[in-house]
Amino acid sequence: MSKSKPSLPRGTRDFGPEVSAKRSFIIEKIKQNFIRYGFSQLETPAMENLSTLTGKYGDEGDQLLFKILNSGDYLSKTSEDDIKAGSKHLTTKISEKGLRYDLTVPFARFVVMNQNDISFPFKRFQIQPVWRADRPQKGRYREFYQCDADIIGSNGIWNEVELTLLFNDVFDDLKLKDYVIKVNHRDVLFLLADHVGLKEKAIPFCAEIDKLDKIGKEKVIENVVALGGDNNKIQEVMELFSISDQQEIVTKIEELDPENKGVKEIKLYFENLDQFNNKNLQVELDLSLARGLSYYTGLIYEVKPTSVKMGSICGGGRYDNLTGVFGLNGISGIGISFGLDRIYDVMEELSLFPEQVTQPLDILIVHFSEENLKHGQKVVMDLRAAGLRVDLYPTSDKIKKQFNYADKIQTPFTLIIGDNEMESGEYMLKNMQSGEQNPMKVDKIIQHFKG
Amino acid sequence: MSKSKPSLPRGTRDFGPEVSAKRSFIIEKIKQNFIRYGFSQLETPAMENLSTLTGKYGDEGDQLLFKILNSGDYLSKTSEDDIKAGSKHLTTKISEKGLRYDLTVPFARFVVMNQNDISFPFKRFQIQPVWRADRPQKGRYREFYQCDADIIGSNGIWNEVELTLLFNDVFDDLKLKDYVIKVNHRDVLFLLADHVGLKEKAIPFCAEIDKLDKIGKEKVIENVVALGGDNNKIQEVMELFSISDQQEIVTKIEELDPENKGVKEIKLYFENLDQFNNKNLQVELDLSLARGLSYYTGLIYEVKPTSVKMGSICGGGRYDNLTGVFGLNGISGIGISFGLDRIYDVMEELSLFPEQVTQPLDILIVHFSEENLKHGQKVVMDLRAAGLRVDLYPTSDKIKKQFNYADKIQTPFTLIIGDNEMESGEYMLKNMQSGEQNPMKVDKIIQHFKG
Repeated sequence: MSKSKPSLPRGTRDFGPEVSAKRSFIIEKIKQNFIRYGFSQLETPAMENLSTLTGKYGDEGDQLLFKILNSGDYLSKTSEDDIKAGSKHLTTKISEKGLRYDLTVPFARFVVMNQNDISFPFKRFQIQPVWRADRPQKGRYREFYQCDADIIGSNGIWNEVELTLLFNDVFDDLKLKDYVIKVNHRDVLFLLADHVGLKEKAIPFCAEIDKLDKIGKEKVIENVVALGGDNNKIQEVMELFSISDQQEIVTKIEELDPENKGVKEIKLYFENLDQFNNKNLQVELDLSLARGLSYYTGLIYEVKPTSVKMGSICGGGRYDNLTGVFGLNGISGIGISFGLDRIYDVMEELSLFPEQVTQPLDILIVHFSEENLKHGQKVVMDLRAAGLRVDLYPTSDKIKKQFNYADKIQTPFTLIIGDNEMESGEYMLKNMQSGEQNPMKVDKIIQHFKG
Repeated sequence: MSKSKPSLPRGTRDFGPEVSAKRSFIIEKIKQNFIRYGFSQLETPAMENLSTLTGKYGDEGDQLLFKILNSGDYLSKTSEDDIKAGSKHLTTKISEKGLRYDLTVPFARFVVMNQNDISFPFKRFQIQPVWRADRPQKGRYREFYQCDADIIGSNGIWNEVELTLLFNDVFDDLKLKDYVIKVNHRDVLFLLADHVGLKEKAIPFCAEIDKLDKIGKEKVIENVVALGGDNNKIQEVMELFSISDQQEIVTKIEELDPENKGVKEIKLYFENLDQFNNKNLQVELDLSLARGLSYYTGLIYEVKPTSVKMGSICGGGRYDNLTGVFGLNGISGIGISFGLDRIYDVMEELSLFPEQVTQPLDILIVHFSEENLKHGQKVVMDLRAAGLRVDLYPTSDKIKKQFNYADKIQTPFTLIIGDNEMESGEYMLKNMQSGEQNPMKVDKIIQHFKG
């Protein structure tokens, strides 16, 4: 039994009281909105068969899967040749299960396994951790949460609009205002590829466009020309990117091809969104947005904070083929994902967490004697019954020690019970920040906190 | 890329919409109570270093740990001798991490790593899955949730009382009435061991007592006598077990030794509980309750359902030494654990889940045309803004198809939007069970659901 100081595996984290409370605050707001929007929860196991996971995330992804060693005498099922063939081969002999790498593949597996019981359209949400054996670095962890919502089996533009409103409602609830929802459409990007003469190289073209923020306009133009793109046309496209008036962008792409599916959907999307202009939606058509195009086939989303230097905090889009990897074709849908860690970082940087979230208690009850403590048991239970978060200092230590504890745990209020208070039923409620204190009966205390 | 029908690893489960909603209902009630009682949340990583986990759960436990294969070319760090030494040895060379086996060891690790930042008494709760490579069978899974609450660094009897009230509040909130909270005390059990002449064999004596339900009184007497216990005295102890009047039991054990720590604490515990006799507490002193005595050192709890044949649904007790395994002594505390799966099974058997929990929606909006659908977008958002769970059928399919969908997803209400409804602003709210329908404006619909 090792008695050396214990530690955490690299790239993993404990979430202590304060951080955990803040994370719960975000998760709850997301979950409440998912539920109000009619999404049902799905939970899948942390472990999946490697046959489910392998080959779904590319070669690099396969290497980043955490694999679980088979139980028991796993070597007995291997031969000398298996050992000689090296780690990669041996793994297939001594490991059958891996940890969930994302929430999409388990969702697809669930849909395939339950296809006869699911009524489409099917709206599911899933909020669970995933694991990746990535090299840990700032902001990149080996265990992190994903918060996904998908609508499958429906093609109406309302899906696209609805998920935009969902982003808006979640960030409203979080009081996070400084963000923009960027949208684009795969087919519009492909139209631009066509325009510069790269119809057959649309994906590499998009990959270059995606680098615009990182490498700058001139370098992108150079790369697109190197791909075989027309120099004048790519200059035109760059000018398109710099237009800020949304209506003007739509008009311009309509001029390129009014019958393009992407152009039509973008138009319809904004027409439907217009109904909600009272909501102060922060949606921006960004023709240079080019993400996940090996998967997404329609509208794509990205949410970016505007006052904090950081990458996207949400993403998503419409896809054609969720379950093809498992041999079930024709399941299309649209999904979004909230990046919990990054949303947390933005909220922290902008000090958006309500004070109450980080306070473990509303009130700590302190007392002067065993008898006061016993009386306090009734008081604490009455206050808890009203929904307040209240604790009773559990032993009759010196009052100074109790107040020291109150300071350490940063309770905003203490309630002091002495013999006089016991008799009158009016307890001293003390604001620990201002020092102000007032005698109050239980019902008045409840009123004070519950309004 | 395998296209064979995917499956789940043995002993693991998907939780689809209905089951997940029911599980969330239980977890939320437990969590809300933990928070009201002043417990702060802790979350620890799924993966722990094997040096943290190994040796903490006995030899059998070590074998039940899920171990994670090191990433990359793990064989390169092994020798031929390592391979020859067999699976058990090789594991130490190719695996450094394992999956969380319970929530207690990670909590102890957290306390040791953060001992300088923690203010005692420290109340933490933790609700997370754990993994055990057990042979799967009915009711036993390889992934399951634990819901733990612990108070460390405090010895007052209020802790024991408070956790009893917490059990009571949680089951009140779940509307689960048919249960009993059984309590006992390690020192009282040891007193009984002493009484039958087995002072030095108290633990084996308790192990026999623990079998009472399974093997019956006669067999237990036989075994205790075989251990060297006095036949007459063990008969006396058996008579003690059969007393149902609580006060009488307390009097009897006081007669054995009024100065016994366990006797005194049990007395004090019931004296304090008496203050809450308005709460209809279902607490029973059961001198034959003997659980986890290699860990617990004071009062022990077990909650059992009374109208469903099933083992305990909660357990817990006071312990002396949480963190000794990591070289930090003197951290004592008391903790309880809610068995989510078993509580779920009891609630299912007694049909205690509120109907609303298993309905994914309050209302599904259906419509007759594209124009009605577009109008419905505003209506659905207005109803969601009021906190209702509402969905809008997303495409203008035939109304019959929309109602079929409404039936399949078992929405309790539909809201029908046609041209007349659009004009009047009064939509037809249809009770899908009774077929009754009434025209209502949005504010009246909200009132109907929100009361």
